[in-house]
Amino acid sequence: MTNKVYFTPGPSELYPTVPQHMQTAMENKIGSISHRSQQFKDIYAHTVAGLRQLLQLPDHFDILFLSSANEIWERAIENTVEKESFHLVNGSFSKRFYEISLDLGRKATKHEVPFGQGFRVEDIEVPASAELVAIVQNETSSGAGTPVAAINALREKTGPEPLFFIDVVSSMPHPKLDWSKVDSVYFSVQKCFGLPAGLGVWVLNDRCIAKAEALKAKGMSVGSYHSIPATIGKARANQTQETPNVLNIYLLGQVVQEMNQKGVDVIRQETEAKAKMVYDYLEASENFEIAVEEPAHRSATTIIANTKLPASEVIKRLSPFDMAVGSGYGNYKESQIRIANFPAHSVGQMQALVYKLKELVG
Amino acid sequence: MTNKVYFTPGPSELYPTVPQHMQTAMENKIGSISHRSQQFKDIYAHTVAGLRQLLQLPDHFDILFLSSANEIWERAIENTVEKESFHLVNGSFSKRFYEISLDLGRKATKHEVPFGQGFRVEDIEVPASAELVAIVQNETSSGAGTPVAAINALREKTGPEPLFFIDVVSSMPHPKLDWSKVDSVYFSVQKCFGLPAGLGVWVLNDRCIAKAEALKAKGMSVGSYHSIPATIGKARANQTQETPNVLNIYLLGQVVQEMNQKGVDVIRQETEAKAKMVYDYLEASENFEIAVEEPAHRSATTIIANTKLPASEVIKRLSPFDMAVGSGYGNYKESQIRIANFPAHSVGQMQALVYKLKELVG
Repeated sequence: MTNKVYFTPGPSELYPTVPQHMQTAMENKIGSISHRSQQFKDIYAHTVAGLRQLLQLPDHFDILFLSSANEIWERAIENTVEKESFHLVNGSFSKRFYEISLDLGRKATKHEVPFGQGFRVEDIEVPASAELVAIVQNETSSGAGTPVAAINALREKTGPEPLFFIDVVSSMPHPKLDWSKVDSVYFSVQKCFGLPAGLGVWVLNDRCIAKAEALKAKGMSVGSYHSIPATIGKARANQTQETPNVLNIYLLGQVVQEMNQKGVDVIRQETEAKAKMVYDYLEASENFEIAVEEPAHRSATTIIANTKLPASEVIKRLSPFDMAVGSGYGNYKESQIRIANFPAHSVGQMQALVYKLKELVG
Repeated sequence: MTNKVYFTPGPSELYPTVPQHMQTAMENKIGSISHRSQQFKDIYAHTVAGLRQLLQLPDHFDILFLSSANEIWERAIENTVEKESFHLVNGSFSKRFYEISLDLGRKATKHEVPFGQGFRVEDIEVPASAELVAIVQNETSSGAGTPVAAINALREKTGPEPLFFIDVVSSMPHPKLDWSKVDSVYFSVQKCFGLPAGLGVWVLNDRCIAKAEALKAKGMSVGSYHSIPATIGKARANQTQETPNVLNIYLLGQVVQEMNQKGVDVIRQETEAKAKMVYDYLEASENFEIAVEEPAHRSATTIIANTKLPASEVIKRLSPFDMAVGSGYGNYKESQIRIANFPAHSVGQMQALVYKLKELVG
């Protein structure tokens, strides 16, 4: 039994109602039902309908359930890139998407800025030959965010041709995207949706589907069971090719329903209020320094600070008080801390964290 | 709340202790821990050690956690087949593996026998050019099994060269394989391990790894985050590339520990005793007929019967008594029923099912 509150950037604190939903799922034996049954189709439809409402998704977008954001990177390249993808890189995860394109034998090019920095649209030139533009809206490793206005401006500058893929793994539903400017977004449920890991959600429009169909018609391999052409028909029948993570699809539907009851605007406002609380504290702290210099590029959901005390020492001091923050990513393990600010974290919990950090670290 | 007992062939009845383990997992916030933490590595190591003991696995085999058996089919072809695979096909799932090889641009050849039949080693000629031989040890769609002795005989007849991949999705740990005769086996946790779906287990030896490394060295794409070369190093450090289904890896470790306490030999004996009970009943029934004619080819874990009454009527009659069997697969939906005989199903539950079927259907 632990009372620890996880402010780690994913896996993170579960949405507060998840243990109760899990118990209900066990009592109703959701783990035993057939994935070909009407009961499963109803669960699937409920989750998709809830997500469509939360994301305010136009009809020409579909939602696919895959296993992880890693898998979505791979399927995106396999299904929508014949030759070349272009990547905005400013941290470990945006770099990984770039590398996956290379792994799959494509030409991948990139516009890279240092870790912790955001992008200036005026500096970015998308090659005319790029079929997919990979934009990380929220770089979980560095805490740098790309404002929605910058995404829209890049689309205006680039023109309508390439597919715009937006990584919102650790920010959705906070960013209010303009769906006329993007073609696909994807996220993992263990970040802002407060669920156990093991499910990736892929939102994509008719242009992505048409591209996959065209590559397949050309004789290219677009993969097998999780190719877009194989998956889309099943998805529209509230089905999956494989036996999926039924339990997580069920839990996601329950959490999204509650998010909709609260309202996405309230969630966005709370996210911003909590983020301001943390950034204000970090700015005044003697030990911490906000890692992302440019205020417009600071993530609202994954807040990163440089720390004078080693991150492990900060984590150790918090531990007796049942609070956990994340260490820095990769090379920044000891020199940064990462604080998740997800819908599962209440205003009260975030206040308590800030007070405790002030008391213990200064 | 439901008291229904699921004899469906997967997802199926959960192992009886799973709800309790799930509650413990929630209390200990296993869904929130970092997949890079020592706590996760310990969970991973515990699960792998338990599986190694249960499967009596030699040291030159590794265990990888993927998302489903569907994914393992795809990764197997991508990583170990440059040009050609060969498939024994006698049902929907063995056929699917064959099709996935074609989807991925390989030459796939097959030895096919009608749905519901097993294979005769004397009829099978593995082409000398086949790099992978796909053998379904237990065809979940038809209930036809391949005895371990036949797998061993096919290896003797074929020689040591091609990789032997054995589908034990819905039979492990019942078949007592000779690990010197096979190179890889794979299964899903929602069948014989009595867990919620969302995890595939891939067991593979050093020859599979060497093949993947060789294909990669040749410049072939072997995939990205879940390629064998990318995954094997992580696995040996008790890690995964992506954030995995942590909860299911934890639960699998708990169930396997209990299976080991019981002992794999006892599980095998119970499985056979329960299978005999069901087959004896089906043989004497006026409504049912054992679907697989040849006794040596009858699966011990997925028992299929032709039914005079429509399957939907059998299922309807059982429903008020809180018992569920599966309908037939695909075209056999109404003309067959499928009864799972997994370790989660106790002798008492299976007896109760047989009595009730006798009473309701005859």
